[in-house]
Parts: sequence; structure tokens; C-alpha cells
Amino acid sequence: MSSATYLVSAPDQPGLVARLSGFFYELGLNILDASNHTDVHAEGAPRFFMRLVVDLAGLAKPGAAEKLGGSADRKALEKAFNALGEALAASWSVGYSDVLPRVAMLVTKDPTCLYDLILRQRSGELQCEIPVIISNHSHLESVADSFRIPFVALPVTAETKAAQEKQILAELKRHHVDLVILARYMQVLTDEFLQQAPCVINIHHGFLPAFQGAKPYHQAHARGVKLIGATAHYATKDLDQGPIIEQDVARVTHGMGPEELVRVGRDVERVVLARAVRAHVERRVIVEGRRTMVL
Amino acid sequence: MSSATYLVSAPDQPGLVARLSGFFYELGLNILDASNHTDVHAEGAPRFFMRLVVDLAGLAKPGAAEKLGGSADRKALEKAFNALGEALAASWSVGYSDVLPRVAMLVTKDPTCLYDLILRQRSGELQCEIPVIISNHSHLESVADSFRIPFVALPVTAETKAAQEKQILAELKRHHVDLVILARYMQVLTDEFLQQAPCVINIHHGFLPAFQGAKPYHQAHARGVKLIGATAHYATKDLDQGPIIEQDVARVTHGMGPEELVRVGRDVERVVLARAVRAHVERRVIVEGRRTMVL
Amino acid sequence: MSSATYLVSAPDQPGLVARLSGFFYELGLNILDASNHTDVHAEGAPRFFMRLVVDLAGLAKPGAAEKLGGSADRKALEKAFNALGEALAASWSVGYSDVLPRVAMLVTKDPTCLYDLILRQRSGELQCEIPVIISNHSHLESVADSFRIPFVALPVTAETKAAQEKQILAELKRHHVDLVILARYMQVLTDEFLQQAPCVINIHHGFLPAFQGAKPYHQAHARGVKLIGATAHYATKDLDQGPIIEQDVARVTHGMGPEELVRVGRDVERVVLARAVRAHVERRVIVEGRRTMVL
Amino acid sequence: MSSATYLVSAPDQPGLVARLSGFFYELGLNILDASNHTDVHAEGAPRFFMRLVVDLAGLAKPGAAEKLGGSADRKALEKAFNALGEALAASWSVGYSDVLPRVAMLVTKDPTCLYDLILRQRSGELQCEIPVIISNHSHLESVADSFRIPFVALPVTAETKAAQEKQILAELKRHHVDLVILARYMQVLTDEFLQQAPCVINIHHGFLPAFQGAKPYHQAHARGVKLIGATAHYATKDLDQGPIIEQDVARVTHGMGPEELVRVGRDVERVVLARAVRAHVERRVIVEGRRTMVL
Repeated sequence: MSSATYLVSAPDQPGLVARLSGFFYELGLNILDASNHTDVHAEGAPRFFMRLVVDLAGLAKPGAAEKLGGSADRKALEKAFNALGEALAASWSVGYSDVLPRVAMLVTKDPTCLYDLILRQRSGELQCEIPVIISNHSHLESVADSFRIPFVALPVTAETKAAQEKQILAELKRHHVDLVILARYMQVLTDEFLQQAPCVINIHHGFLPAFQGAKPYHQAHARGVKLIGATAHYATKDLDQGPIIEQDVARVTHGMGPEELVRVGRDVERVVLARAVRAHVERRVIVEGRRTMVL
Repeated sequence: MSSATYLVSAPDQPGLVARLSGFFYELGLNILDASNHTDVHAEGAPRFFMRLVVDLAGLAKPGAAEKLGGSADRKALEKAFNALGEALAASWSVGYSDVLPRVAMLVTKDPTCLYDLILRQRSGELQCEIPVIISNHSHLESVADSFRIPFVALPVTAETKAAQEKQILAELKRHHVDLVILARYMQVLTDEFLQQAPCVINIHHGFLPAFQGAKPYHQAHARGVKLIGATAHYATKDLDQGPIIEQDVARVTHGMGPEELVRVGRDVERVVLARAVRAHVERRVIVEGRRTMVL
Repeated sequence: MSSATYLVSAPDQPGLVARLSGFFYELGLNILDASNHTDVHAEGAPRFFMRLVVDLAGLAKPGAAEKLGGSADRKALEKAFNALGEALAASWSVGYSDVLPRVAMLVTKDPTCLYDLILRQRSGELQCEIPVIISNHSHLESVADSFRIPFVALPVTAETKAAQEKQILAELKRHHVDLVILARYMQVLTDEFLQQAPCVINIHHGFLPAFQGAKPYHQAHARGVKLIGATAHYATKDLDQGPIIEQDVARVTHGMGPEELVRVGRDVERVVLARAVRAHVERRVIVEGRRTMVL
Repeated sequence: MSSATYLVSAPDQPGLVARLSGFFYELGLNILDASNHTDVHAEGAPRFFMRLVVDLAGLAKPGAAEKLGGSADRKALEKAFNALGEALAASWSVGYSDVLPRVAMLVTKDPTCLYDLILRQRSGELQCEIPVIISNHSHLESVADSFRIPFVALPVTAETKAAQEKQILAELKRHHVDLVILARYMQVLTDEFLQQAPCVINIHHGFLPAFQGAKPYHQAHARGVKLIGATAHYATKDLDQGPIIEQDVARVTHGMGPEELVRVGRDVERVVLARAVRAHVERRVIVEGRRTMVL
């Protein structure tokens, strides 16, 4: 049975929950899950966010077609909801449970995040398709093969970067990709790429205090940190500054050398990335400026 | 500005979010916060739970009185909401932000949980009043004094237990207590007491595997456990089996003796109890059979 | 460069650290890492535990051979250390960094723990060999193939159980297996098997409170637990009662159904099992009665 | 029964564990606890760290006096150990279990950390004395009174800062203070003060990413962080850059406003500070450059 998940963001005003849920009630569509949040600290004015999961079975009930102006299909429903959205000055989007998001993995040589995400998808934990794995190396081709996922090797040098990114974009388009995961892809992506690409999720290590420059794990060791963190975020122009989706840390001790800190850091990166991808494909994340709401 | 927090539990049916939020929308009352959950795994049939925080300022707006049948006060609002509740076969309750819950502490000799809860109340983190501290010892009277909270010492022996519990009940009544916290009160309460007392929250240590019998921390040490837990729950007839509100664990090592396990266990008990009390006084907890929903 | 890791357990007495470390000092062998613990709560009398990692490069230095009675090899060193061990009434064992433990995986259909452990081994995090994967199903053969690890399918029924366990033992012997991991092997092993098998590590789910009987995740859901745990332990006759190596928990909410609790539980089982296997292959675990010391 | 805890730091060389533990063995002093670590990543050359807890009862045994050159007291033992320390080019210090460290609290208006540390001391968890509480306000005098601890109010303005810090130093000296805790003391201390003061521990909030400038919790909210951290460290000239003793984080959500982030941050600061103070008074912390070893 199919469901639709709506994400709505609008200026706050009285009656928003009632009007949004009432829209579906009047059409005879059951709300399976709903959550909302009003950010009273938003810049300018309070802002309202809502996630609604609606059972589409009700579209087949008598009366729905009439109320939607003749045809009770998804297109008519979207049109009707859009009218409400405009009345509320809302931004909104919808996804359908039977149309899985198509997720491309960008990798280099490290297989850990790649295996982790594929296995979670295969076990049903991540409801998405993985139509293609793209890499600047051929190193992980056998992993892709073992799961029968198309693999595209696109080597890159400083000279060929612009051309290679165009090739990546072409592959993403060809495979109708909705979401790109940087699963330890060891290349910086250009602004041009990010502007043309679909949504991109990146995973980044993190430390308290923060360390600038090269070899952050060596710096963290030299400073004797007791925690190592990771942050999953949407990639924006300012690469590591995009809206944060998920964060976590792992405990380390004085007895661990830089290599061991790297290992622990990779482990926490893997878990944090998986949680962020899951929240995204379940349509739980609303971006508002530099923040996310995870509903 | 005052608000009302509603907790609602009802058999699931289409339109519940719309009807509950629509009730307040039509009265011109703004919903400040709302969350809901449908338990499809409930015994019998799916069950719906909702928490709504409503701004009562709208009661002063023209039109509210008319719609409520003459007077726009809390009593009229409760009456009107009750009619909706009956139509939905719902259980519901309401609390007001300007009527703080009155919380009694039952203690023996250990001051840690007592101090912790009082300090959280004084800092504004726990929105409640603490009208009385009751103990079977006089040990903690000076703590109560230093915060100017009435202290009642009611010593107890096996022979006087029934009488002492009656005295406790009388004190709870006299101080209009809504909630009792067993903040390391080292006496087992009888079924008779629990049936007549207001809501009671208890904190209980916990281990994996579970240990029966005396000296659980010594058993946990002998078994080499790596985690020690605590569970905060409502006290019911079957004392340690009531609905769980909050749980957490702390890590321990082979190097810790039984006394140190006790210390770590107390620390986690204190934190878990504080979180559970906070969830309760913020009216986030709905009990359904042996489970809680923390909305 | 090779190192030797000693695990020593002995009745406590003054001078143990000095005598054990002095043994290697006099031979010119550098101690790379040392940790010890005295359990004053042990039954009977206090007991001393020590882990020593020794650089074997010193065996090549002049003088070592002379002190060891002629030949400065591992055998002579073991013989000399054994004399000290006997003088201290100690139990001890030694492993060498260039002799990797040989670890067999027992699996059924769930690939998660299997992938996780193999990937950690391939990344160098788990210093061991995986000479064979044994299963009562052929389901995971392709996983074994993709990593070029021999796979043995040994189906089992109630009637063939004794025979099948003998076949498993034969495979373990044939592959010179030192450690068996029950990586979600969904069969109960008999006492006879456990008595003849090498060391076996099992992973077990855990709940607070504990649930007896079938469908523990459904029971945990019905009870509204807020945490789900996992315990990795050595398998002994009383299957789930062996010495605990590692434990952890994950947080769950009222919104998660039994299937989601299973998913979260599996995830924590996977992480806990990996940590336990790592501690074992790094020779950090000393078993003493029903407890472990993880040094 | 008294014990001595030694902290030793030395250039690494073979035989250090043997020589240090052998020193006490030859005197007939039992080692109650020992741990050591070799930092192979240290700048320059590998460095060795050891913590030894020694039972002083052995000083009364026949032979100890003779070996110590006549008198078997602490002074003679320190002199003998110092000879070994010089031979090893070691830095070392010793503390005695019957000579509790004297810890002064510096506070302003927030009582939470102060209560927390006093209660841990009173329960025996923190083995120290608290001879004085110093504040730039009189706000917390009643708290000090309720625990019968001397309270000194030393108000400060920009003009009187140098004079006030001198007064603080005089109080610290008068009370023979070994350790100063900045328990939410809301004044920046000058370099001059820190150079003359005994050891100072500070607690600092922390965020991923890091935020410069005013109102860090508001910045963290605007950025949508999912974790808030705290770092306890020794205060050095560069106030928030001293060697880290302990760190931890707490999880926050998009639903929490800046004030709630402050509350969660305070809670984690309190716990982290308590753990750091405990490690220090138990003599588990060795500072080496910008790092600490917590043995």
C-alpha cells in the first residue's frame, strides 16, 4: 500500500496543523504519521515545519475524485495541495513510498562506508536504489561487481578535473540520481559541480577543539583530545559548512596513536553517515537556511 | 502567558489530527507544539496518542466566548473538549502552565537524588513545586532546611508500617501533592499505599543479565558486567514492574570493586530519575497499559 | 619486528610486577606495553593479572642465548618463563605477533556480522586469519566467495545434529582454528561440542528488564523499554552465561515497532561482537572464573 | 593504612617497569596498583609514563630502615626514589593517601558545579578537602554556609582586577590550597595570576564546528548542531588551550532553543568537570607538554 510523505515549511500562523491535516481529512486520506515544529528563534519571524505521511489508499474511495476535480490521482492531489501551499506561503515537497530515491555513491579506495551503505540497503534498512557507483579509481570495482551494481571509473588529475566532473554529472543524469553520497570520495568538488548536481551528502571528521590545516588526526593526538567526532551534512559551496544532518563522537585515550585515532574516526564517520542517509531517504530532513530540522 | 497541555489517547481512526487540531483552530487558539504517535502494534487495535500545547491567550479574543457557549474560561474549554473526547472514545487530561505540579520527595539517608532534583527545580529546569520532603529518618532535615522546604520525619518499623503509610498519605493530601518521587527511599511501599497515593515515580538499578536476590552490585561484580543501568518507572502494585519512563547505562570495568559499582550506579540513577521527572512534569508521558509514550 | 604478548594470572603477593618485568629486563627484552590489575574482591584471596607485550628483537642481542641456556629462541624463552610461572603458581599463555590467530565464522543466513568482521579483518583492524566460514545453510556462500574464503555448508536437523557438530569439529581441526565466532549462527550448540571446540565467542541480545521465552523483541516492545543491549561472551556449557567480554546498548523509542527494535538490536550486536573479537585477538582478555579482565 | 601514589615521566628505555617496580620490591613495599604507557609518538623520542600506588605498611617491616640508610620514613623514601629518578632522567611526584589535596572553588553566581563537587566530596567520591570557596559575588554564601565551608567574597571591577587577584592568591596561600577549580567563575584570570597560583582546572563549553565570538550557544543553535560538548582542562596562559583532562558531549535537537542548549551544556559541563577533578585528586593525570595521560 502506497503512502506519500509531505515536507512543509511556512511562516508560522494559527491553525497550520489543523489546515494541513484537515486537507487530507476532507479528502478521506488517513494520516499515518505527523510531526511538526515551530522555530520561534528563526531569523525574522517564527517558522513552522511539518512532516505528514498520508495513506494513498483513500484516493480509491468514492468522493476523493469529486473533491479533487474529477481524477483522484497523484497529480491531481499535488495540484490541490499546491493551492493550499500557496495560500500558506509554504515551501513543500512530496515523495512516494513506491518511488524509491536513486542514490549514487562516490568513492575512492576506502570500502568501509560503501559496504556499510550497500548492506543497509540490501537488508531493507535504507529504502533506496543504488543505480551506480562512481570512483576516481578502479580499486573498488570488485565490490560493486559482487553486489551487481554498475561501476564507473573516472580518473582525475588537476588538468582533467573540470572534464571529469562533467562526466560525473552526465552519469548522475543518465541514472536519474536523486541523491549523491560522498562515501569517502577523496576529491574536493567544485562549486560548479555542486550547483548542477542533485542533493549531495558529505561526511566530515570533527574535533574539539577544531584543527586547521593538514593531518588533523596527528594534531588531535598532539593535543591529547579525549573525543573524536564526525558530522554528516549537505555539501554546499563552502564544502564543510553545509547544513548539519547528524553528528556523533567516539571516546579515545592517550594510549591511541594517530593511526588508531584514524581508525576510530572512520568508524564513527561510517555510523553517522548511515544515520544521515537514512534520515534523508525517509524524508525526515527539512533544510532551512544553515540548519536542518530532522522530524 | 498561559498555555494548556493536553494528553490524548484514543482508538485510531482517520482524521484524528485534523479533528483535534481543528477544535482549537475554530476557537482561535494557537497550537504552540503538537506531536502524535499511532501504535499499530497495540493489543486489539491500533491506538492514537497526541500531545498538544495550546496558547490560552486566544480565549480573550472576541468570538471564543460565543463558541464556548457564553464564557471563555478554562472550565468551559474543558467541557467543550470533553464532548470531543467522548465522540472519539478518548482518554484525556489537561494541565496548565501557571498551575505547577506539586511534587513530594520521599527520602531516607542518601542526599544525592534529593539535592539533584531540588537544584534542578531551583534553576528552573524542573517546573514544579516541592511542598514537602518526607523521610523515615531525620538525617536529611538540614538539607530540607537549607532550601526552606518543610520536612516531615516519619520513622517506621515492621509494626508501625501501616500507620506510617497512613501518615504519609495524610501529609501528601495536606500538601495537595500531585506526584511522589521515591528519591532513594529505602522502604517498600504496600499495595494499599500505592492505590491511595497520587502518581509515584521510582528509580531502580538494572543489570544485564538481571540478578535476583540480595547485594545485586556484588553479584554484578562477580559476574564481570561491563555496564550498569538504571530504570525510572511509575510504581505500581508489582513494584519494579511499572511502566518505564526512562533508562540509561554507565560503563564499568573489571578494575572497579562492588563499592565503586554502587557509586557509578547511583550516578546513573540520579540522571535517569531527573530526566523521568522532567518528562512527567512537562506532561510528555502517556501511560498505556504497561508502556509509556514519551511525546 | 615480532613481539610476544603474555597473559598472566597468579595469587597476589608483593613483587609480582617487579619479578615479571625483571625477567624480561635481565634478558635484554624491552617491554612495549604492560598493564596489570589486582582483584582484591576475588573469592578466596586477592588475585593478580598482568598483560605484557615484549619486543622479541632483544633475543638476537648477545647475552640472551647465554642466559636462556644456549639458544635464544621462542621455545627456550617459553621454558624459562614457565619456570618463573611455576614459582609464582601462575597460569599463563603467550601469543606472537607474527602468528595470527585463526578464526572460523559460524553463520546461518544473516550476513551483517559476517561482513562486518571480514571487512575489519581486511582493513587491518582485526589481526587474524579467517580460514573458513561454516554454515547450516548455503545462503551466504556468495559472500564467502567474494572474499575468497572457503565456505562449508553443513545442513542440520534434529536427527543429524550430533553428526553435523562432529563435521564442524573436523573442519575446525582441519583448518587449525583457534577461535570460533558465532556470527548469528542460529543453532544451539551442545555441551559435547563446546567441550571439544576451541574457544567460542557468542553474541546475545539483552534487555532491561530481562525477558524469558520466545520473541524477546516483541516482549521488549510490549513493555516499552527505552534501551536495547547486546552482550558478547565466551560460550560455555550454560550457553548465555559464559564470561562477559563486552556489552553495550542503543536507545529506542515508543515509536519503534518490534521489527525496528530487531534492527537496532542487530546493529548494537554487530558493534559489540566486533569489539569483543578485537579484544580477544589482541590478547587483552583474561578469564577468571565467571569474569573477564580486559587489560 | 596509608599508601603513596607516584607519577613518573621519563625518556623511554628498556627495563623501566622492572627498575621502578624493583625499587619498591627490594624495600619490601607492596605495589597495590600500577599502570604505564609509552608514547612512541612523542616529539623527539619515545617517552614513558607510569603511575604506581605503593602500600606504605612495608616501611614498618624490619630491613626497610636499613635499606633506606637508617630511617624508614617518607622523607628517606623520597630521597631514595629521587636518586633513582635522577638516574632515569625522570620527572616525578608523590602524594599520600592520608594527606588529602586541598581544593579551592572559585565561583560567581551559578551554584550547580559547586553543589555537585561538594556533594561528591561529602559522599567520599572526591578524596579532598575544600578549605575555602572564593567568589566575586556574595550570591553563593548561603550554599557555603550550609556546608560550613569558609566563604570569601572578593568583588572585582576592571580597575580592581589586579588587586583582587592578589587577594585571591593570598587566600589560596593562607588555606594551603593545592588545586583551584573554576566552577563557573565568570572572570578571565590574568597570566600573572596563573603563574603564581597552584594548579588550576577550568571547564569550557565546546561545539562542532567551533564558534568564535560572543553568544556561542546562539551560534550553535543558528547552525543547527546536534551535539554540545564540554572540555575540562588545566588553565594555562592561553586560557582555553591548556592540556585537556576530560571531554564529553550531549545530544541536542532542532527543537531546543538557545536557552535549552545552555541548560544541556551546563549539565555536561558539570559531569565533565567532576570527572576531571576526580582524576586529578586520585593522581591519575600526568601532563606532558600540551597533552595529558590519564593513567
